Amino acid sequence: MKPSSVAGPLNGVTVLDLTRVLAGPYCAMVLADLGARVIKIEVPGTGDDSRQVGPFINGKSAYFMSINRGKESIALDLKAPADRAIFERLLARADVLLENYRGGTMEKLNYGFDVLHQRFPQLIYAACSGFGHSGPYKTRAAYDMVVQGMGGVMSLTGHSGGPPTRVGTSIGDLAAGLFTAIGINAALFERRATGQGRKIDVSMLDSQVAFLENAIARYAATGEVPGPLGARHSTITPFAAFSTKDGHIIIAAGNDGLFAALAKALGHPEWTTDPRFRTNPDRTAHHAELTAAMEAVLLTNITAHWLSVLDKASVPCGPINNVAQVLADPQVMSRNMVASAEDPVAGRITMAGNPIKLSGVPDPVERPYAPGLDEHRAAILAELDMLDRE
Amino acid sequence: MKPSSVAGPLNGVTVLDLTRVLAGPYCAMVLADLGARVIKIEVPGTGDDSRQVGPFINGKSAYFMSINRGKESIALDLKAPADRAIFERLLARADVLLENYRGGTMEKLNYGFDVLHQRFPQLIYAACSGFGHSGPYKTRAAYDMVVQGMGGVMSLTGHSGGPPTRVGTSIGDLAAGLFTAIGINAALFERRATGQGRKIDVSMLDSQVAFLENAIARYAATGEVPGPLGARHSTITPFAAFSTKDGHIIIAAGNDGLFAALAKALGHPEWTTDPRFRTNPDRTAHHAELTAAMEAVLLTNITAHWLSVLDKASVPCGPINNVAQVLADPQVMSRNMVASAEDPVAGRITMAGNPIKLSGVPDPVERPYAPGLDEHRAAILAELDMLDRE
Repeated sequence: MKPSSVAGPLNGVTVLDLTRVLAGPYCAMVLADLGARVIKIEVPGTGDDSRQVGPFINGKSAYFMSINRGKESIALDLKAPADRAIFERLLARADVLLENYRGGTMEKLNYGFDVLHQRFPQLIYAACSGFGHSGPYKTRAAYDMVVQGMGGVMSLTGHSGGPPTRVGTSIGDLAAGLFTAIGINAALFERRATGQGRKIDVSMLDSQVAFLENAIARYAATGEVPGPLGARHSTITPFAAFSTKDGHIIIAAGNDGLFAALAKALGHPEWTTDPRFRTNPDRTAHHAELTAAMEAVLLTNITAHWLSVLDKASVPCGPINNVAQVLADPQVMSRNMVASAEDPVAGRITMAGNPIKLSGVPDPVERPYAPGLDEHRAAILAELDMLDRE
Repeated sequence: MKPSSVAGPLNGVTVLDLTRVLAGPYCAMVLADLGARVIKIEVPGTGDDSRQVGPFINGKSAYFMSINRGKESIALDLKAPADRAIFERLLARADVLLENYRGGTMEKLNYGFDVLHQRFPQLIYAACSGFGHSGPYKTRAAYDMVVQGMGGVMSLTGHSGGPPTRVGTSIGDLAAGLFTAIGINAALFERRATGQGRKIDVSMLDSQVAFLENAIARYAATGEVPGPLGARHSTITPFAAFSTKDGHIIIAAGNDGLFAALAKALGHPEWTTDPRFRTNPDRTAHHAELTAAMEAVLLTNITAHWLSVLDKASVPCGPINNVAQVLADPQVMSRNMVASAEDPVAGRITMAGNPIKLSGVPDPVERPYAPGLDEHRAAILAELDMLDRE
């Protein structure tokens, strides 16, 4: 099929994308940013649920626009014979099918992997669901917050004794979307040798478990159930937010050398020989005392001052930026991470750029806009007709 | 070179891994789980910094073991001529070089991409650094908390007016590790056609910006700087943690159909025609009133009761599990997400499984252990000698 207009290593790959809301669409956006052509197949009438999620600009969802840039849209009713015929003509030409239904839904449509793999052995079938396509919860639906709660990350986030705290971005969806994108790319790589597609089955809950990283090791090693840690790291010290005269500063001195540089920069080189602070395990055991000692210094001046002092000493540190400050950060801007698109309905839209920078591949800040529902129907059908005549 | 003992789509791929601590090692673990052979090249004497991070089991770091399973280790001093010669013999045979130094460090060693690409055009060079290899901060180091603060996610996490709150897992590292893994796989796919490697330059800060998803759209659409949201979603309602008689429950009714099912299950079908709650934008505008109405019902019974009621009504919901509960969850266990390894020093170690499930690829709960420092030196040198004689 026609290639994407975006240059990248996945040029020539066509993805049929049945997904809605966030995990699947985010995965497809990553693939599109790498040069895949993504054809979004939406429910007629309403389309992707996220088209109904605000805020809206001239009636078009900013949420939808920010994660569907550069995709094409065709509305197909997969229960209607005429639309099923179009879908199957697309399947015969596509490299990847991406879906995020509950387990069993595609089988009910007679589009389960076993059926599709027999008819279209080249097709890579990627499922990105709440709980995966096996196990006791396989037919249940999930949303981000459900797996943030069930998967343990909420038990680690927030302050001891405080109310439940959601991670402020939808990592339940984003993690699953990225693991799915990795699986798809690995299967594309393998297929170049074997000619055969595989099924990829990623679940949001599994992805949260994979994101627990050292919390599992800590629990398994000590038998203590990890709790919320506020604004510090569990096993590396100092690695936290500290109070200054006018707000906060993040300081992350991840090894003994950095701690020595920090101690010197704050005017207390003797900390490195203090038995409470000599090694990282010492500092972690005495984190409250170290915090008090550090804040006694830090509270005497403002965040900007300490950022300058610690940067000069090569100690990793930073401010707590809000979204407006992030978008204005000179590093973020210089890396083309503030991108935008000219939407025919909503006008100019700001969004995050592509974080995967590749040598020899353009990294434009101008991105193609997110499609209107069914916008590309005529063009896609004409393309299929032309391909069938060839 | 020899293939990995773990079956997967990346069988035959060899990764040289210079990375330390989390973002890079996590990326390399994902590649190893997919069947790549990962040779970890460590600093002689101390090795990966995370070998010094507790908790320890028989002196071996549980943190290190949980993210370095199945890798091989060789200690090389990249400033010493003899070790540089070994490194270069490995580069000539490898598919991927992965590093997470500050920008400029590899150039000082004369191993920058430009030099390596000329000598080893097949080599894919992946850099996963704090700020990337361009821009004003390129020579600065970062750790997870620094980019959580600078990248905006901390401004969205926690409770309004409350203290700064870190996401309880290191998403600053994990996000960058996954984007790097995606870039590596895409470059491997492309290389099968072109024979040429590329440089992949992923930064932790960029990855945090890419994780802001709808927060950027919200700010750009409304001009309002998003703040912390406690335990609810910004634009989807009801999508939050709610109080019950004995704790909390997560309920995520992401569209009007699910909200109708929820209203009925809680005994208030009239909510769907209440003008405050009719559509998702209505519910978001009146989220405090909806929360009060829902909690008036939910506080009359315990979490387990409501989970059962809402599951029957197919409303996405879940508990807030701690790490112990996550590891005992029947779905998590049935998906092989609780894996372990028999470590020769530390004994049996529990860790997260591989969330990327692939048809036709085994998904063992028994995983190979994480290497001791320099454990594979003799075997790797013998292999190189043998290959050079061929």
